[in-house]
Amino acid sequence: MRILVVNVNTTESMTEAIAASARAVASPGTEIVGLTPRFGADSCEGNFESYLAALAVMDVVTSYPEPYDAVIQAGYGEHGREGLQELLDVPVVDITEAAASTAMYLGHKYSVVTTLDRTVPLIEDRLKLAGLDARCASVRASGLGVLELESSPERAVEAIVAQSREAVERDHAEVICLGCGGMAELEEAVSAATGVPIVDGVRAAVAIAEGLVRLGLSTSKVRTYAPPRPKQVTGWPFSAARV
Amino acid sequence: MRILVVNVNTTESMTEAIAASARAVASPGTEIVGLTPRFGADSCEGNFESYLAALAVMDVVTSYPEPYDAVIQAGYGEHGREGLQELLDVPVVDITEAAASTAMYLGHKYSVVTTLDRTVPLIEDRLKLAGLDARCASVRASGLGVLELESSPERAVEAIVAQSREAVERDHAEVICLGCGGMAELEEAVSAATGVPIVDGVRAAVAIAEGLVRLGLSTSKVRTYAPPRPKQVTGWPFSAARV
Amino acid sequence: MRILVVNVNTTESMTEAIAASARAVASPGTEIVGLTPRFGADSCEGNFESYLAALAVMDVVTSYPEPYDAVIQAGYGEHGREGLQELLDVPVVDITEAAASTAMYLGHKYSVVTTLDRTVPLIEDRLKLAGLDARCASVRASGLGVLELESSPERAVEAIVAQSREAVERDHAEVICLGCGGMAELEEAVSAATGVPIVDGVRAAVAIAEGLVRLGLSTSKVRTYAPPRPKQVTGWPFSAARV
Amino acid sequence: MRILVVNVNTTESMTEAIAASARAVASPGTEIVGLTPRFGADSCEGNFESYLAALAVMDVVTSYPEPYDAVIQAGYGEHGREGLQELLDVPVVDITEAAASTAMYLGHKYSVVTTLDRTVPLIEDRLKLAGLDARCASVRASGLGVLELESSPERAVEAIVAQSREAVERDHAEVICLGCGGMAELEEAVSAATGVPIVDGVRAAVAIAEGLVRLGLSTSKVRTYAPPRPKQVTGWPFSAARV
Amino acid sequence: MRILVVNVNTTESMTEAIAASARAVASPGTEIVGLTPRFGADSCEGNFESYLAALAVMDVVTSYPEPYDAVIQAGYGEHGREGLQELLDVPVVDITEAAASTAMYLGHKYSVVTTLDRTVPLIEDRLKLAGLDARCASVRASGLGVLELESSPERAVEAIVAQSREAVERDHAEVICLGCGGMAELEEAVSAATGVPIVDGVRAAVAIAEGLVRLGLSTSKVRTYAPPRPKQVTGWPFSAARV
Amino acid sequence: MRILVVNVNTTESMTEAIAASARAVASPGTEIVGLTPRFGADSCEGNFESYLAALAVMDVVTSYPEPYDAVIQAGYGEHGREGLQELLDVPVVDITEAAASTAMYLGHKYSVVTTLDRTVPLIEDRLKLAGLDARCASVRASGLGVLELESSPERAVEAIVAQSREAVERDHAEVICLGCGGMAELEEAVSAATGVPIVDGVRAAVAIAEGLVRLGLSTSKVRTYAPPRPKQVTGWPFSAARV
Repeated sequence: MRILVVNVNTTESMTEAIAASARAVASPGTEIVGLTPRFGADSCEGNFESYLAALAVMDVVTSYPEPYDAVIQAGYGEHGREGLQELLDVPVVDITEAAASTAMYLGHKYSVVTTLDRTVPLIEDRLKLAGLDARCASVRASGLGVLELESSPERAVEAIVAQSREAVERDHAEVICLGCGGMAELEEAVSAATGVPIVDGVRAAVAIAEGLVRLGLSTSKVRTYAPPRPKQVTGWPFSAARV
Repeated sequence: MRILVVNVNTTESMTEAIAASARAVASPGTEIVGLTPRFGADSCEGNFESYLAALAVMDVVTSYPEPYDAVIQAGYGEHGREGLQELLDVPVVDITEAAASTAMYLGHKYSVVTTLDRTVPLIEDRLKLAGLDARCASVRASGLGVLELESSPERAVEAIVAQSREAVERDHAEVICLGCGGMAELEEAVSAATGVPIVDGVRAAVAIAEGLVRLGLSTSKVRTYAPPRPKQVTGWPFSAARV
Repeated sequence: MRILVVNVNTTESMTEAIAASARAVASPGTEIVGLTPRFGADSCEGNFESYLAALAVMDVVTSYPEPYDAVIQAGYGEHGREGLQELLDVPVVDITEAAASTAMYLGHKYSVVTTLDRTVPLIEDRLKLAGLDARCASVRASGLGVLELESSPERAVEAIVAQSREAVERDHAEVICLGCGGMAELEEAVSAATGVPIVDGVRAAVAIAEGLVRLGLSTSKVRTYAPPRPKQVTGWPFSAARV
Repeated sequence: MRILVVNVNTTESMTEAIAASARAVASPGTEIVGLTPRFGADSCEGNFESYLAALAVMDVVTSYPEPYDAVIQAGYGEHGREGLQELLDVPVVDITEAAASTAMYLGHKYSVVTTLDRTVPLIEDRLKLAGLDARCASVRASGLGVLELESSPERAVEAIVAQSREAVERDHAEVICLGCGGMAELEEAVSAATGVPIVDGVRAAVAIAEGLVRLGLSTSKVRTYAPPRPKQVTGWPFSAARV
Repeated sequence: MRILVVNVNTTESMTEAIAASARAVASPGTEIVGLTPRFGADSCEGNFESYLAALAVMDVVTSYPEPYDAVIQAGYGEHGREGLQELLDVPVVDITEAAASTAMYLGHKYSVVTTLDRTVPLIEDRLKLAGLDARCASVRASGLGVLELESSPERAVEAIVAQSREAVERDHAEVICLGCGGMAELEEAVSAATGVPIVDGVRAAVAIAEGLVRLGLSTSKVRTYAPPRPKQVTGWPFSAARV
Repeated sequence: MRILVVNVNTTESMTEAIAASARAVASPGTEIVGLTPRFGADSCEGNFESYLAALAVMDVVTSYPEPYDAVIQAGYGEHGREGLQELLDVPVVDITEAAASTAMYLGHKYSVVTTLDRTVPLIEDRLKLAGLDARCASVRASGLGVLELESSPERAVEAIVAQSREAVERDHAEVICLGCGGMAELEEAVSAATGVPIVDGVRAAVAIAEGLVRLGLSTSKVRTYAPPRPKQVTGWPFSAARV
């Protein structure tokens, strides 16, 4: 089975890190293909960038030339998953939701530890819409930007560990979700420091996507995610258009 | 004061109708400027089209060359409002929210009557995120597409009236919101048939936008809607880029 | 257009301050009439006083001899709005709701900063019933009584600013609502100290009331706010009765 | 122990019926005193009348000359309970809440069957504020006014039974609350017709009030229901004042 | 009337203490019978022990040889009440719910102060299912195990008082529920230290059970709590079976 | 990897059917072991039977002599999962939750179609506690008992299809969960009749359990699901005890 794992920003090294992390947990026989958007921001840390990413993900996925079995949208708290579901017949898994639904099998409450404070409301909103917020103890920010995770790995560990401890001790989280596509490396350190299970969204999404494919299940097409009606669309796909 | 009223689809005649409707209720001294996206679908009836519209609205607004005091996003249940709020310093008013918050001053519960069944979940999700759903009795679909409202005005009236009656009688709505940017014309007929106040989102948004401007209030910039951080963005604005 | 702005307590100087504040934002052509209840408490800081105020407001409004276009109930967290809506044909706007619905256009979450701690639950209850609580980060008390706002303006600024800062920093509010009819004067100081938009309920209510009148909308009469059925009522209106 | 059972309307015969119903379940040694407001409507079927009743109940209770141990506010869905709690040291029990909290010991979901459709939102709002709505399957209206219950007992039985059956069969209620102070007589007939437990609010309130007194518990005075602060109140108590 | 008060653990001395506490508030003519499970843990502080207790309570109640009028399940936050309701015709009152529904008559918000931190989620879950959580300010743990309450009464008072004060001051609780079957002794000390009403679940349950019996009300049998269908059950009742 | 799939009733043929269904979707290398409780009811259709099953499942799992990697509790809407989580170090997956969390990846809303009407509230309660109810459109009963599914397969298909259609058409479900451990056989027929994805809880649970094991994740032990404290437990395990 082939799973497309789509980064939401244009930073290639992050795509590679995400794909490597996905491969580390994929079943034998699962091919992980990392995709990088052709346009958008080099990191997504707000709504404008996230809306750009939403379309950039749809653009890069719909122009992917080979067959595939599932798509993982590898951005935490980002827009766009519903659009992909309309355009595709294969299952689509968002890592924000994958982390949350996985964490809910592991503890009574979970927290998300993410990058900048400004992305907290985006994540909260995605969880609310997904109906996965009832057991969310908190979404906490480490104060580090997305790209700082890569450039300052030691500071990243320290900041994520500090917030994870607060989540466990003050917010009564029993599980921590790493709230960014590029945090899988931190799993071990945060787990050691807090003593609770750590869920990386990309890895959780691989397991869920594989499961859906194995069960022969995909997006329902009767209502919300029915294919777009035939109509005149200008400027799409972006990669091939100049408005 | 100048208010940009931005259609979410590429159908010029609908932009004109929306702008005319806005002008009908604007205060003396308020200039209404109708804008049509440069790309996207000729009607928005689902998530993919709505995500396209989100960016197309940001694109056309940010490239508008004159000063303005407020922006109205004239699509019902559409994505994108949060992105606009990050990019702009002036107030942004979404008609889905404008209709709902206005209706809540007029009755204990309100219903929305919209176009196709498939757009119902989009509207429900927008109201939930906006925190304006607690007094929403129902979102009902007339079964008519967006463009059929214009092409078959008589069928439109009939279908909207029928669903509005159901909303009042079965769902106990006391106010009806017309759930599409292009429905203002129906106000009188639906009001006559149901005996309840009818709220058109575009008109409600004009009143709210004027009020915000008059009060000197605009989007808070401390967290969720802070301006995007300086970073490398590829392919934006779309109107000027080829990916 | 004429808007009645009704104080909920019997302190004339507060009525005047409220009316002046309303006039400062009213459109040209809008006449603001301040009304003071003929009975009740000189400040409303609890349920008993608020229930008295509810009737006192209905009493003074229904005996107002001239025509008017809208009514603003200028008490924060007070009872009575639903009764006025039954008795009147014109729109009724409560300042608690006006502040909240306005704040929701400006930020992801808002807080209310009010007077005494004992009034916090009243405000929370009003927001819950109004269905405007989902995005309320907190309702905080400054510890100052209603009349102290007038008598100790400096302490008032200090206390309100302190709580507003806490609301922004700890509760993640992005907008502050001034939770008392007589706080409009503080707008500038609190805004300067916190850097977030400040919403005064009276001023917000003026904008909303004007908007409703301009849109030709008023209270739905089909169910909850239908006029009282004809029946024997003893002792009403109070101003004319001795029980 | 002496319990004041206060009618919310001015119809003496209803006060007598309510008091008789209360006496039928009171423990030996409990004296039930029925009180009728000195002003207000002869039946409460809306917000204006309910706000009048709120004060009329406070008026008649606070001028009652003898000692008493608890107060029951015998109106369904009415305003005012919180005011009474501020003014009194003894426990206050509202029959809307008493019926609901009792029904919740008897079945998974309960419904309320009341008088006119226009009172449904009042009851829903009271249950929501009381935090007793989560297991409420529905509030249904029989279409009969309060006074018709007395004047047309046969029609009343028929209409209440019909709605109770609907509540059980369609809304999955397992318990029915009789949603009016004057419905206790119907208990047997509705029970026989539906096969589910029927809760009369007045009777439930007697049991709860007796229990609170026996346990030595009364209203907390630390915050919401602290006694009113000393201040200047004009026109109160109404019975002794002319504004 | 005879009420069975069933301890959830096998510690006889706790059964006696619970029964004595119940007798202290029972009406004249009410006989309190304390029952101790024949199997299970000597204290319930988690889900496994609570599930054991659930069956042990059903076992000891259904094999009780004399008639009785009501059953009180005297464990805080424990499983099993719904099973008892299916098996019995008399009312069943759980002390977690009894404390909460009683507290809701006394203040705007209540808190529960319990034993170990690990039991907090059990209590929260029970309150959520019971639909009694909306006005719960917090569930706080004293850090003492169930049996330490008896063995270290002084430490118990200190720890419970400390958490109760926090609940009142930080969480804005106006009433404290003692969150364990064996805490009734602490009522006076906690009340003196906090100035708010203290509700003991066992005592509250006695009042509620007596009230239900006096009103002639018992569990609805139409759906959720209908008697088990006739079928083959192996190993039940446990007291008489070897699997 | 070895996964224990535990039936909740004592009917061996149902255990076999469940295990076969699990095997049909298990990955190569996954061994499915079906376990049947040693005591309890031959079908679980209510709370008493479900509480028995809760312990019977813990009994049969904890006395299983070989190592295993995960446990699936194969009863829909049953009690007990939290107890298993305390007793075990491996992940525990409940099929009610597995079906729901899987369905949420496939459509905007899902419905559950189950056996008898009396089990509907149990399922609703389990979903509420699991925090997976926000996107549940309805839980519907086919009216057939658990064992009738096996004995009358044609009637079962007909009844389940009928309710599934209602769920899609009236409740706007986009996905159907088969609400009983023994319904996997119906998947194809219901899918064909409704055109929406059908989720069988057992199969979904296999995919989720495999995923958790592959990700190296298991139950958090810091709070709610910490192992039981050492204490005196009488009569456990049941299989080895006579009380």
